[in-house]
Amino acid sequence: MNYIDLRSDTVTMPTDEMREAIANALVGDDVYCDDPTVNKLEKLAAEKTGKEAALIVPSGTFGNQLALFTHTRRGQEVIVGKNNHIVIHEVGASAVIAGVQLRTIDTVNGTMNPAEVKKAIRQDDIHEPETGLICVEEAHGCGAVVSLENLKEIKKIAQENSIPVHLDGARIFNAATSLNVEVKEIAECADTVMFCLSKGLAAPAGSMLAGSKKFIDRARKNRKLMGGGMRQIGILAAAGIIALEKMTLRLEEDHKNAKYFAEELSKIPGVNVKFDRTDIDMIYFEMGEEVISEKAFIEKLYEKNIKVNGIEDGEYRFVTHVGVTKSDIDFVIKCMKEIM
Amino acid sequence: MNYIDLRSDTVTMPTDEMREAIANALVGDDVYCDDPTVNKLEKLAAEKTGKEAALIVPSGTFGNQLALFTHTRRGQEVIVGKNNHIVIHEVGASAVIAGVQLRTIDTVNGTMNPAEVKKAIRQDDIHEPETGLICVEEAHGCGAVVSLENLKEIKKIAQENSIPVHLDGARIFNAATSLNVEVKEIAECADTVMFCLSKGLAAPAGSMLAGSKKFIDRARKNRKLMGGGMRQIGILAAAGIIALEKMTLRLEEDHKNAKYFAEELSKIPGVNVKFDRTDIDMIYFEMGEEVISEKAFIEKLYEKNIKVNGIEDGEYRFVTHVGVTKSDIDFVIKCMKEIM
Amino acid sequence: MNYIDLRSDTVTMPTDEMREAIANALVGDDVYCDDPTVNKLEKLAAEKTGKEAALIVPSGTFGNQLALFTHTRRGQEVIVGKNNHIVIHEVGASAVIAGVQLRTIDTVNGTMNPAEVKKAIRQDDIHEPETGLICVEEAHGCGAVVSLENLKEIKKIAQENSIPVHLDGARIFNAATSLNVEVKEIAECADTVMFCLSKGLAAPAGSMLAGSKKFIDRARKNRKLMGGGMRQIGILAAAGIIALEKMTLRLEEDHKNAKYFAEELSKIPGVNVKFDRTDIDMIYFEMGEEVISEKAFIEKLYEKNIKVNGIEDGEYRFVTHVGVTKSDIDFVIKCMKEIM
Amino acid sequence: MNYIDLRSDTVTMPTDEMREAIANALVGDDVYCDDPTVNKLEKLAAEKTGKEAALIVPSGTFGNQLALFTHTRRGQEVIVGKNNHIVIHEVGASAVIAGVQLRTIDTVNGTMNPAEVKKAIRQDDIHEPETGLICVEEAHGCGAVVSLENLKEIKKIAQENSIPVHLDGARIFNAATSLNVEVKEIAECADTVMFCLSKGLAAPAGSMLAGSKKFIDRARKNRKLMGGGMRQIGILAAAGIIALEKMTLRLEEDHKNAKYFAEELSKIPGVNVKFDRTDIDMIYFEMGEEVISEKAFIEKLYEKNIKVNGIEDGEYRFVTHVGVTKSDIDFVIKCMKEIM
Repeated sequence: MNYIDLRSDTVTMPTDEMREAIANALVGDDVYCDDPTVNKLEKLAAEKTGKEAALIVPSGTFGNQLALFTHTRRGQEVIVGKNNHIVIHEVGASAVIAGVQLRTIDTVNGTMNPAEVKKAIRQDDIHEPETGLICVEEAHGCGAVVSLENLKEIKKIAQENSIPVHLDGARIFNAATSLNVEVKEIAECADTVMFCLSKGLAAPAGSMLAGSKKFIDRARKNRKLMGGGMRQIGILAAAGIIALEKMTLRLEEDHKNAKYFAEELSKIPGVNVKFDRTDIDMIYFEMGEEVISEKAFIEKLYEKNIKVNGIEDGEYRFVTHVGVTKSDIDFVIKCMKEIM
Repeated sequence: MNYIDLRSDTVTMPTDEMREAIANALVGDDVYCDDPTVNKLEKLAAEKTGKEAALIVPSGTFGNQLALFTHTRRGQEVIVGKNNHIVIHEVGASAVIAGVQLRTIDTVNGTMNPAEVKKAIRQDDIHEPETGLICVEEAHGCGAVVSLENLKEIKKIAQENSIPVHLDGARIFNAATSLNVEVKEIAECADTVMFCLSKGLAAPAGSMLAGSKKFIDRARKNRKLMGGGMRQIGILAAAGIIALEKMTLRLEEDHKNAKYFAEELSKIPGVNVKFDRTDIDMIYFEMGEEVISEKAFIEKLYEKNIKVNGIEDGEYRFVTHVGVTKSDIDFVIKCMKEIM
Repeated sequence: MNYIDLRSDTVTMPTDEMREAIANALVGDDVYCDDPTVNKLEKLAAEKTGKEAALIVPSGTFGNQLALFTHTRRGQEVIVGKNNHIVIHEVGASAVIAGVQLRTIDTVNGTMNPAEVKKAIRQDDIHEPETGLICVEEAHGCGAVVSLENLKEIKKIAQENSIPVHLDGARIFNAATSLNVEVKEIAECADTVMFCLSKGLAAPAGSMLAGSKKFIDRARKNRKLMGGGMRQIGILAAAGIIALEKMTLRLEEDHKNAKYFAEELSKIPGVNVKFDRTDIDMIYFEMGEEVISEKAFIEKLYEKNIKVNGIEDGEYRFVTHVGVTKSDIDFVIKCMKEIM
Repeated sequence: MNYIDLRSDTVTMPTDEMREAIANALVGDDVYCDDPTVNKLEKLAAEKTGKEAALIVPSGTFGNQLALFTHTRRGQEVIVGKNNHIVIHEVGASAVIAGVQLRTIDTVNGTMNPAEVKKAIRQDDIHEPETGLICVEEAHGCGAVVSLENLKEIKKIAQENSIPVHLDGARIFNAATSLNVEVKEIAECADTVMFCLSKGLAAPAGSMLAGSKKFIDRARKNRKLMGGGMRQIGILAAAGIIALEKMTLRLEEDHKNAKYFAEELSKIPGVNVKFDRTDIDMIYFEMGEEVISEKAFIEKLYEKNIKVNGIEDGEYRFVTHVGVTKSDIDFVIKCMKEIM
């Protein structure tokens, strides 16, 4: 059964080219750094982000938490946007693994006010933890892209206070596409960057953590501690190479589809699309219970072979990706009109 | 040299009666529960808070962190006001000891909006930590007292979600004095409550954690793990008994002095007193650098044997206590007028 | 360049059948439990171990640490053999992730004395942590297999004290082959079992954690926290299915080769083979510096395209696997004789 | 009711001189470093141990765990004797607070074999945690004193590997008395040392952590995090000063009493005194159930107003201290003969 799956770009399937690359991948034991395909991918990821080195990890959450663990000492504090992935969707891991406190800052469409960031940096006071890291997210999970100017300002504040910056760039290629810049221009605003090979880039699994050689050496050991040292993982890296070389080029299409989707959705009475957050492959909208109940909405679309998630924080979210065509979108719109 | 010390009510000296009680205290090895003075104090603290049992701990921070550690499982999340003591003045301990993530809520004069608390409770979703505890603070360190109605509403939400509530009542006797209720009426809004014997109550050190017998039994073991099991600590408990029996009765005086202080301060040009936060023994005010520089202000008062802290979050804070008389206040006002 | 790689069975390459299965695997988003190949593998792993449910994880270390994290509360103690993998080769993770203290017991060829285990269980004393878990390892990394009787005795002691047992069964299929029993007979001696799809079974990566349905449900959420929730991971699961269905049948050959290797090595003057630990695919031996220096030994074999590890705890270890044939062994023996 | 309390030297009562000192102590807010009595005690403790600085903490467990927390990074490993206090009597705290794994070494009467310590230091291997600290204990809780030569050898090994040494010197004054050396000669074998003001020195509570100024500065902040920052704690420090200046001089008497006690006990049929562990104020002995049951023994002595602990690890332990006179010992021996 084929579904139109709008729940997330995490549902993307590996392409035929990826499957072929996987089947023929040269592999080795990556714990001994013996996997040529992993080594190639890590070199490529370092180049794309303009960093000295990179490391493959099982997931985006793993990469972010590994960054926190490697940057900080336990008992330090991390400044981060209050609705960033690290805060709301990583199961509270930062207090378990890194042992750090999150100091959350309000965001407007994912953007933190640099003045607020500055104010949140702790003083040298016996009652206060030391600020050990600032985390930014780009593109932000709310569907918006943060401006390069904002990221640069935050980086400057961090440098003035000798605090490193980690960038959760799960969708950094979407952000670069949207901003029409190279990924490394964004990554320059941070000491380390995590990005995902899955999601819009359609690799089956795997994320990359990039940074200085020294940082990645330490992260490699911490990855082992966290159980993320895998063996012949060139199997996944092979798909990752395709993701970086080929799939990044087609994100523009997902973004166009998302904008088209947003326009069409907004024409449906009762649907309130969040147009200030349609920078990437996501469309957020409100639709009251008086229009259609959440339960009915999900079930009736499912009967049409359309998968959607329920409301989170008052909003529905649809996501476009390589598995969603323009005619799929038209079909979804048609179905929605029918059931409402 | 005698100073007028306005930095905090933590600077209070033990009274002569306390010193006598300490010198004559019956003591024993409290790790074996053999200290009769500790046992008496713990019983008294339980009665005052209307809880089944109580436990002496070295400090308020210790008591709060012990509560978090005992209530939660690591990896859970704790909902707490963003400028509560647990967040801003406990050195990031909650991520180290309890291993929990703090989910911070905006407060207005220390009061959390119950609707915001409700919204912050996590759903049953694989990406989200479980909400393990809600923390309130009464009186709040910002100088305001939270209404009983608000605490009751939050307790109700917590109960509906089977989440315990911990009350950081470091200054609960100040709150009870201000609200003109018994301490147990406030404590009823929480499953556990921590309060301090030092601060306004003037015992040299020590705080109490109160709750159900089952909770305190587990907290007693966790206290040992955290290094807070002390031996013949009836030495401190003896002063604590005086604090609870005598010193609670005179907090009204500190509050009156604080209000008088606030009035007099507000008459000084350039001083902007926060009158909406003068419920207890604290006075917060803004005073711009154009009036007098922070450095000069502190130094010049110190020359007059007056100790004050510097600006925190844009405000000065003065605190009244048993060591600050009305005439001390008049002297401070006089000095301020001279130096400005 | 083809090497004879004796460093570990972790260096095994996926078979052609695995590569084909991977290339054609039906996949889905496993975080949503939507990956049919993963679901099939998890069902198969549960059956093989006689448990209700199973979960794929990135590595053996991940599976063991996830088990510790899910079984215990932080501050508890875990009884474990002093030279078990969890103690010596998991980078100290148990204190970081689970937050538990390891209570190590001497082992003889991997076997713990049940009387020692019993004695190590903590009493109800305020100075002592609670014993939260007992960990056994089968086959043991020292090359020996622990008897079923011993595992049963330890399980009995655990049950009498209401303590769960976790089995690090990274090489449980080797153990079952050696004991000539079904894997589930071994797994019955524990509440949870972790085993690896890589190593002797030659899948590129991935391990399984099996236990009760309730346990695995909680482990699934904890896996997300630890960053081990991967997306279209049917890619790896497809190879895992081949590993379980086909590769388990040929471990007997690795064991025979190891025994042959041991015999031949022991004929070389100065080589002292540990014949009491040749139950599976490993051969441990001592060879003094007077025979040949460690550095020279490794380098000279490498010149012959043979990879070996250096001395650990006074011993060399050679490991046989699907990539090492009998004639490879003869070649290695021949080379060793030449260089010594 | 007056008891002869042989359970531990932790039951010692403060002397009259201590009570007077406490009653008259000059105090201040020690979190602001304003307590003159604390400052005096910390200076004195630093002098006695030959370290740059010292810090008062609530208990010996607190001091040891604070040392671990301050010396190590989470995920490191600590080498320590398997029956040291840190391992067996601190409730598993090291995995919770410092987040470190304990690597335990066998001891003979508290003494670790330096060769075993050396072997336990981890290599630079991706599977292994870094060794972050070595912990010794002097006098050892088993009743024996470790030789200075042994401590020096371990210190040398540590230095060669750039690993710091922490000394759990809860009873370091007993050790110094027994070895007839100054405390600072023992303390020289370690980078940091914790000792107790309570126990044989009879202060009601409190322990000291001493080390370099830099270390103690960091420990002071970490003490706040752990909840051990207390306010007018000169109340306890006043007794601590008496403990250091006066009580250390009389430990010789406790040791003589212990030796006398051991001799007399050994004359009772069925009592097997451990004479190789009578270096300080403790007497360990075995006495089989066939002589008298544990329960009857404890209860019958209690009827004579004698408090003793039950069997731990197969042995009874009696402890002498300032509250146990020679005639008390004669009385206990007489009672034992009667009841057996």
